[in-house]
Amino acid sequence: MRVVDIIEKKQMGEELTKAEIHFMVEGFTNESIPDYQMTAWMMAVYFQGMNEKEASHLTMAMVESGDQIDLSGIDGVKVDKHSTGGVGDTTTIVLAPLVASAGVPVAKMSGRGLGHTGGTLDKFEAIEGFKIEVPIEKFIELVNKNKVAVVGQTGNLAPADKKMYSLRDVTSTVQSIPLIASSIMSKKIASGADAIVLDVKVGDGAFMKTVDDARQLAKTMVQIGEQVNRKTLAVISDMSQPLGFAVGNALEIKEAIDTLKGEGPSDLTELCLVLGSQMLMAANKVETLEEGKALLQEKIDNGEALETLRQFIEHQGGNPAVVDDPSLLPQAKYLTEIKADRDGVISDWTAHEVGVACSLLGAGREKFTDDIDPAVGVVLKAKVGDSVKKGDPIVVIHSNTEDISEVEDKLTKAFKISDHSEPIQLIVDTINHA
Amino acid sequence: MRVVDIIEKKQMGEELTKAEIHFMVEGFTNESIPDYQMTAWMMAVYFQGMNEKEASHLTMAMVESGDQIDLSGIDGVKVDKHSTGGVGDTTTIVLAPLVASAGVPVAKMSGRGLGHTGGTLDKFEAIEGFKIEVPIEKFIELVNKNKVAVVGQTGNLAPADKKMYSLRDVTSTVQSIPLIASSIMSKKIASGADAIVLDVKVGDGAFMKTVDDARQLAKTMVQIGEQVNRKTLAVISDMSQPLGFAVGNALEIKEAIDTLKGEGPSDLTELCLVLGSQMLMAANKVETLEEGKALLQEKIDNGEALETLRQFIEHQGGNPAVVDDPSLLPQAKYLTEIKADRDGVISDWTAHEVGVACSLLGAGREKFTDDIDPAVGVVLKAKVGDSVKKGDPIVVIHSNTEDISEVEDKLTKAFKISDHSEPIQLIVDTINHA
Repeated sequence: MRVVDIIEKKQMGEELTKAEIHFMVEGFTNESIPDYQMTAWMMAVYFQGMNEKEASHLTMAMVESGDQIDLSGIDGVKVDKHSTGGVGDTTTIVLAPLVASAGVPVAKMSGRGLGHTGGTLDKFEAIEGFKIEVPIEKFIELVNKNKVAVVGQTGNLAPADKKMYSLRDVTSTVQSIPLIASSIMSKKIASGADAIVLDVKVGDGAFMKTVDDARQLAKTMVQIGEQVNRKTLAVISDMSQPLGFAVGNALEIKEAIDTLKGEGPSDLTELCLVLGSQMLMAANKVETLEEGKALLQEKIDNGEALETLRQFIEHQGGNPAVVDDPSLLPQAKYLTEIKADRDGVISDWTAHEVGVACSLLGAGREKFTDDIDPAVGVVLKAKVGDSVKKGDPIVVIHSNTEDISEVEDKLTKAFKISDHSEPIQLIVDTINHA
Repeated sequence: MRVVDIIEKKQMGEELTKAEIHFMVEGFTNESIPDYQMTAWMMAVYFQGMNEKEASHLTMAMVESGDQIDLSGIDGVKVDKHSTGGVGDTTTIVLAPLVASAGVPVAKMSGRGLGHTGGTLDKFEAIEGFKIEVPIEKFIELVNKNKVAVVGQTGNLAPADKKMYSLRDVTSTVQSIPLIASSIMSKKIASGADAIVLDVKVGDGAFMKTVDDARQLAKTMVQIGEQVNRKTLAVISDMSQPLGFAVGNALEIKEAIDTLKGEGPSDLTELCLVLGSQMLMAANKVETLEEGKALLQEKIDNGEALETLRQFIEHQGGNPAVVDDPSLLPQAKYLTEIKADRDGVISDWTAHEVGVACSLLGAGREKFTDDIDPAVGVVLKAKVGDSVKKGDPIVVIHSNTEDISEVEDKLTKAFKISDHSEPIQLIVDTINHA
């Protein structure tokens, strides 16, 4: 088998075999195939695409390039949930205890991630004492005992994907749906997931800017899941404005607690009920979205979801008192309001700009060595469609520095007050089978 | 300027600026741009193409990456001729003295080349004593005195092209018309050509397999020439069967001598008259093909073309007696005929297979360190359209080894005798302006 022939075959738009795809991925991982040939191949994939079989072979080749976490010691169907990333995405913090309270094990391994705010791990670490570095045996024990644990990724998962991503980043081959889909799926499968629920974000603050692209990505991932025997469901959800009100690490923990009490923002609550229901469906706990939503709502209403969070925090060494007194979470020194300069209705809240503002405050990191400030962030007081009067607060900035003029400037430009606004559809679509 | 943005711009099918193209080529040459980014860019060019402006910028960027030969010491318009390569292509050997005899200087710098037979240099070296390593001052003096000299390339011409070609070869980006066109044009311009005549071969034995591709390549090169102020003309000529009768180094020298005497194969003669006329047109010596052909025919008929060859060989240290006695050229030990096994008409003579057979005989080289045997090769006795009787010789093999069963086998399969044959059009098209 010659690399150049495999590149040419894809260039001509032909379907590659399992052997050809494994040859490329293995050769690239063990460095017998140089960067430039892998780049040529990925650029050919960018232009010619891949069908679901090819994308599945690529996914499994990347899974097999490294360690695979064995979660067979955990009873029941292990469902993982993945979001393609957005601004103020608090869903994992809500879903972990919520789904666990409904009896489905949540064994979540998470990376730290780069971005406007920290990753899920960073958010949980905003809780005093919360430990994320847990050996795999202890992790399995925690899930069996409490139905939920969230820990840092261990092992060398999908190294081919890491190596390919580094190259894609500098060769303009990031924006290829089969490459994105197989990258996401390979990491979930290597982490030991039996079933996967995907939250594909669409809009200005997301990786996918159009509904067509988001739908294509979601479908490709669901098809890959089908091909490799991992039940996979997906939601396509709006990320044109931030999700919920809070963006920032401790601020999102507080918002998750509110949501588990039944007092959260309506969009965040709705999305968590849909994603949670899909997780229950993927685990064969319920058969329909409606059934799932009813069960999860019951767990919120009867306090079991909140109680699960409390125990989950305690078992991972965190201070469970934050659940009843969120003021125990890190607090920023300065609160600054931006107010409406006219009467009207919010017609635009640009998620991306809010994310950049939070970065400037220190809520996220650009490199893995950067420190995160858990206390800082913003809390929106009005969202698209809300009527406001001149002088009403639109957003509150939580900062640890006094001079935040750049952040104020960004945020002032991030929203628009108009006479009318177009409604935003939060749940664009759900995909419940391949 | 960021490389990844330039890759993305081309990926989106947008036109690149001169600055962007020079940035890529210069960066790649000085190794500040790594192989994988250059590959990504070239693969994007493969899929999205380049317009004539972009291809011209690319050509000049490659020219400027290395030395540029200064031929201003030679009087008159220096016209270079380039063939995209085929089997038994004796045109340069005929054209150099023929065009010079009509008063237009031919200052030819040639590489050795890899292939089924040697390059132009190797062919001239089949003449005893012929020297191709000549310093540039002596080269200019030779051209001014005799109107013609053919020497080995000196200097570091278009190193960017060399480096890009090595990468294209292993990343399946060879078959891109703007990349091929700029590669050819950059080398001609760096060698000091004022005007360029291109012989774009099409067919089984050529790089371009279809007339559409050949026409596209020819047009692109003529357009590049126009953009960079080098008058450029092109011929698209058939290479489905070998050109002329002879394939091999000394055998082609003999055939060239025959052609300059007016006794050459009709297809080789016709192509030389057309290409030669375009060279005269490019040098503003004549205005039309017809005028050029008449002038060149006159030089053949009155013996001036042959006399120019004789002097040219003598001035470069070769034995001019070969012109009158070609048996002084290296002779192979064994001659083997392949005969017709039936009556009929030759309907197919596959150029590529004839080339491979000559390689097997030792007429060409695969690597630059391989030796070439100047004596070996084949001489066709009948070509497409010729009627033959059972037992007639179809081809004579000139070999220095006794066992040539593999070569015989290849050649036997390379031609077909049928009841009818489709005529081959030698000159598919001529392009005399952009």
